[in-house]
Amino acid sequence: MLVLNDNDIAGLLSLNEVLATVEAALVANEQNSCLVPKRMHIDWGENTLLAMPSFSSDYFGTKLVAVMPGNRQEQLAVTNGAMLLNDAQTGFPLAIMNAAKLTALRTGALGAIGVRYMTPPDIDAVGLIGCGVQGIQQAIFACAVRPVTKIYCLQRSAAGMEAFRTALHAQFPSVAVMPCENAETVLQQASVIIAASRSATPVLPDDARLLENKHFISIGSYKPDMQELPDQVFRLSGKLAIDSVFAKTETGDIINPLRKGLLQEKEVFTIGKLLTGEEKVDVHGTTAYKSAGMALFDLFMAKALYEKAKAGRVGMDVSF
Amino acid sequence: MLVLNDNDIAGLLSLNEVLATVEAALVANEQNSCLVPKRMHIDWGENTLLAMPSFSSDYFGTKLVAVMPGNRQEQLAVTNGAMLLNDAQTGFPLAIMNAAKLTALRTGALGAIGVRYMTPPDIDAVGLIGCGVQGIQQAIFACAVRPVTKIYCLQRSAAGMEAFRTALHAQFPSVAVMPCENAETVLQQASVIIAASRSATPVLPDDARLLENKHFISIGSYKPDMQELPDQVFRLSGKLAIDSVFAKTETGDIINPLRKGLLQEKEVFTIGKLLTGEEKVDVHGTTAYKSAGMALFDLFMAKALYEKAKAGRVGMDVSF
Repeated sequence: MLVLNDNDIAGLLSLNEVLATVEAALVANEQNSCLVPKRMHIDWGENTLLAMPSFSSDYFGTKLVAVMPGNRQEQLAVTNGAMLLNDAQTGFPLAIMNAAKLTALRTGALGAIGVRYMTPPDIDAVGLIGCGVQGIQQAIFACAVRPVTKIYCLQRSAAGMEAFRTALHAQFPSVAVMPCENAETVLQQASVIIAASRSATPVLPDDARLLENKHFISIGSYKPDMQELPDQVFRLSGKLAIDSVFAKTETGDIINPLRKGLLQEKEVFTIGKLLTGEEKVDVHGTTAYKSAGMALFDLFMAKALYEKAKAGRVGMDVSF
Repeated sequence: MLVLNDNDIAGLLSLNEVLATVEAALVANEQNSCLVPKRMHIDWGENTLLAMPSFSSDYFGTKLVAVMPGNRQEQLAVTNGAMLLNDAQTGFPLAIMNAAKLTALRTGALGAIGVRYMTPPDIDAVGLIGCGVQGIQQAIFACAVRPVTKIYCLQRSAAGMEAFRTALHAQFPSVAVMPCENAETVLQQASVIIAASRSATPVLPDDARLLENKHFISIGSYKPDMQELPDQVFRLSGKLAIDSVFAKTETGDIINPLRKGLLQEKEVFTIGKLLTGEEKVDVHGTTAYKSAGMALFDLFMAKALYEKAKAGRVGMDVSF
């Protein structure tokens, strides 16, 4: 069995390979060629375990994620986990991978796929609300799909801002990082806004004049009681792209606009349909996209990482 | 992270240590000190994936088991899997273990705990219906808890019989293996009968005169449409011990006697109650016990294996 840690994983795939991998998963999902059960969710005390299996023709796999809020006080990652990859023919375990970097990469790619398919091709300024671990990946992948020169950032802590700048410049040294005082400024400067916060309430003003003809991507909200985008975004866009149908029951950024009647059920569609051509959006009007993740993205990432690692003799091959 | 394969696992714990580990899990289960959610069961094609998480105060873990019937034609194991063990404080993965040997050991111990608590202490002859991989473990662990001198065996294939003899004699060279022509002979010779078959219908004659005052342990049936023990066993015993409440919905050896009114719900009890003293059985009358397994046994096994392996520097410690 191959063991891949985060260092192994960080070096294996190019940004474009990660993007192609996640796009392949989105298309496979549209074609119903894979099986993705609803994930298992177990709470014990303040902690949560998610078991996320999925199945394709050549591989299946399970991501096991632990969310441990108490880790924050200990300066440890709140979320951690592992991904087990199996051969779909025999069921035998092929690889165990740390899930942190794998998840960060696919989440970055999921945001950038929104940028790629729902914004004009000449976008050079991106707004970012929340510049933590997720925000860094969002910025890096956005730069991979658009000729970005400036990123307008809202990030409370100065240390967080500095860490963001360092991480972005390691990959894109010529992109300017522009710290902003408030969300209004971000909205005025950038036409694509990516929200990667943990906010329970919208991170942008609910002002149609500021929001119109801009492009909104929500990455951060992952619970029914979390909503990052203000109501006017859904009214202006008239449509909402999502990365999987599971997201409909998982996050307030979909549950709330449907409940309030800002969107009808038929106006919510999976972004894979933009890749297959089954849906179209006007990239010059207001667009909205909510990504919440899904086990199938992890499975396709694990497959790509495994095959590249085997070919390049990366990782530790252990007798199992 | 520590990687333990089946060879590592085979050498780590003595039979008595495995028995003590599984007994500790049974007692913890009675004390409700652990969380054991209903396992996740996913069918795709003819295959099945089981995700079995459970949680204790110091560790949690998830066993992922793939059941691949097509493997039989390829002479590969039908069931295989892995067990991920995590630190309950931080959630971090501590170890990944092959689940095959771990499961075989705990299943052997579960059967033997039935022998230990539900049969007279001087038992020297054991009957075994089905001498495959499970049957071997049942025999070995039975010899660890009783002064067994003879095992009366029903096993169709001569090759299977020979493999059984070889495996048993590797650990207990002085125990005689007595092949039998039919189940009646096994019943006449032994007072404890362990059924470790994959039979859909009872493997013993439904004859009260042959069954009375004997001790029955069913290990093999794991689906609602499988039943190893004949109806008269339940009528004679008047009680049925089970290894976990989940078994009530999993196997025909519990579902059927309840449905037919051979037993009342209140006559089915978890065997842990014999360990804590909350229940008693007359070991000189007819006794019946059905073991179906549970995630908590795997968690306690994984914990014991991990701690022993760390102390003895067994396994491969890899950066994760």
